[in-house]
Amino acid sequence: MTDYFQGLPDTVAAALREDIGSGDISAQLVPHEQQATARVICREDAVICGRPWVDEVFRQIDPKLVITWQVNEGQRVAPNTEIFRVHGQARALLSAERSALNFLQTLSGVATTARGYAELVAHTQCRILDTRKTLPGLRLAQKYAVVTGGCHNHRIGLYDAFLIKENHINAAGGISAAITAARALHPERPVEIEVENLNELEQALQARADIVLIDNFTLEETRSAVQHTKGRAKLEASGGYTQQGLIATAETGVDYISVGALTKHVRAVDFSMRFGEAGERVELGTYFKAAQYLHYETALRPRRRIAARSGRRRRWCRGCPRW
Amino acid sequence: MTDYFQGLPDTVAAALREDIGSGDISAQLVPHEQQATARVICREDAVICGRPWVDEVFRQIDPKLVITWQVNEGQRVAPNTEIFRVHGQARALLSAERSALNFLQTLSGVATTARGYAELVAHTQCRILDTRKTLPGLRLAQKYAVVTGGCHNHRIGLYDAFLIKENHINAAGGISAAITAARALHPERPVEIEVENLNELEQALQARADIVLIDNFTLEETRSAVQHTKGRAKLEASGGYTQQGLIATAETGVDYISVGALTKHVRAVDFSMRFGEAGERVELGTYFKAAQYLHYETALRPRRRIAARSGRRRRWCRGCPRW
Repeated sequence: MTDYFQGLPDTVAAALREDIGSGDISAQLVPHEQQATARVICREDAVICGRPWVDEVFRQIDPKLVITWQVNEGQRVAPNTEIFRVHGQARALLSAERSALNFLQTLSGVATTARGYAELVAHTQCRILDTRKTLPGLRLAQKYAVVTGGCHNHRIGLYDAFLIKENHINAAGGISAAITAARALHPERPVEIEVENLNELEQALQARADIVLIDNFTLEETRSAVQHTKGRAKLEASGGYTQQGLIATAETGVDYISVGALTKHVRAVDFSMRFGEAGERVELGTYFKAAQYLHYETALRPRRRIAARSGRRRRWCRGCPRW
Repeated sequence: MTDYFQGLPDTVAAALREDIGSGDISAQLVPHEQQATARVICREDAVICGRPWVDEVFRQIDPKLVITWQVNEGQRVAPNTEIFRVHGQARALLSAERSALNFLQTLSGVATTARGYAELVAHTQCRILDTRKTLPGLRLAQKYAVVTGGCHNHRIGLYDAFLIKENHINAAGGISAAITAARALHPERPVEIEVENLNELEQALQARADIVLIDNFTLEETRSAVQHTKGRAKLEASGGYTQQGLIATAETGVDYISVGALTKHVRAVDFSMRFGEAGERVELGTYFKAAQYLHYETALRPRRRIAARSGRRRRWCRGCPRW
């Protein structure tokens, strides 16, 4: 099992350090004692991902902040869904806001993309794998988001599985020799090897590779590879597929397709955080029906509109769900 | 001046740690003493960015590796352009490859996007600014890439400028009071304040804000704001613009438009690294004309095609520039 949360506090600390530096000077305009409740709203159809990183951002800023999540990790939400609320010192909420949302928007973006890929091949036995083409510093977080979205992890790094490519093969003296050497070095590690044609595939199968990577094979070559392999090893296809090409490749019967685009491109999901006044009470809307939110209904009283100070509109109401 | 390289070695160390972990087991198949030359090729029309991070990856893996860049930082390149060569221990090159390319593909992606935005408004006086919507841990690197691509930095974090929003204004007791308080707290810091209408804009101008953020103003409202301001402060527009909306907004005469998409979405640029054999010599192509590459011409002899071992095609040749 991959420990996706290894080093998570350090990742969060680095993100806070680069954002807050010597201090949030704008937050100093807010009285130290002021309390507030903030709501985070998702503006798009998306798969939510990143709760452990968001929780850690708030914990590091102020361990007294109280977060109440309204959705589960990996849950698909419609536009304008409330994702979580956080209550506590207003200054702390303001200082944490952007760092928390940056994790949430990035990881939800990866999970949402992954969900899209998983759905494309859901009618087949093929699994979509990620790669090591990740955002520097966010490898484990992105691998976690890929799984949250419904795809699967290839190796995490250079340490947990062999992927023997042309240079390794040449240096080791051929496909069979490379696989034998790998087994001798680390018998506990999976051995995957990249091949260029059916002849090399057969060599890899005879040497009992666990997984064979067929890179940039045509659809016809991929079909031949599946027929030739007959389950003697797992087959992984890769290449820059179009959506139709990906589906067609999955339908050949390959076990895996690895997709760099899962993690190297990121389309952030749009979230916003809206602040209520200190001590404000809000009522719950009809969409809070699930049993896990019942504690809210007893804790919260009907909303009262607070007279806006100096005539300012309540901005956080505009796009919010009606509650 | 922003020190974009603050903490760079730590950022690189974290990226290498997550990729290499306890060690690159596949590289152990390559003899310790084997030397190699690798070439990095850009597969797309792109703006190159990230040299300091790439250099640091190779330096941390093996300080004896020698990198020779073929392009300048910020240079626009055509598909299949060689970006740099690196020579040294083959194992070190293999272990560094992915981490180096992950920095290069991510930061070149940001710079390429920035170049696109900068060109959209190049006929106006308007500058495109980034935001704090960045990839966690890569704030400074992305801010650097934005500038490399031809756009400009908003504040780096919460520490180097005021951005006074609705919550700060309410807490401070109004626009004028908030600006006055900010000046008193940190007279050396720029003061920017967000307003919702022309009435609030006038309050901000009278209180002598340095920059006024007009968020989600219509095009007509933006024009009115520019006319009303008459240069008394810098005006920044923001909002989710279409391409046409962005150009039209820039043409109203606003000083800045801030664009979250510059850094929150990333479309990685496609690079690949191709390995030559140990001791292989390559000749230079006609496109290596610049004086700074002359040392290559004396150092390298005409290429000889090396008989492929066991009939394997030379993969690195396929998409490479002809030299």
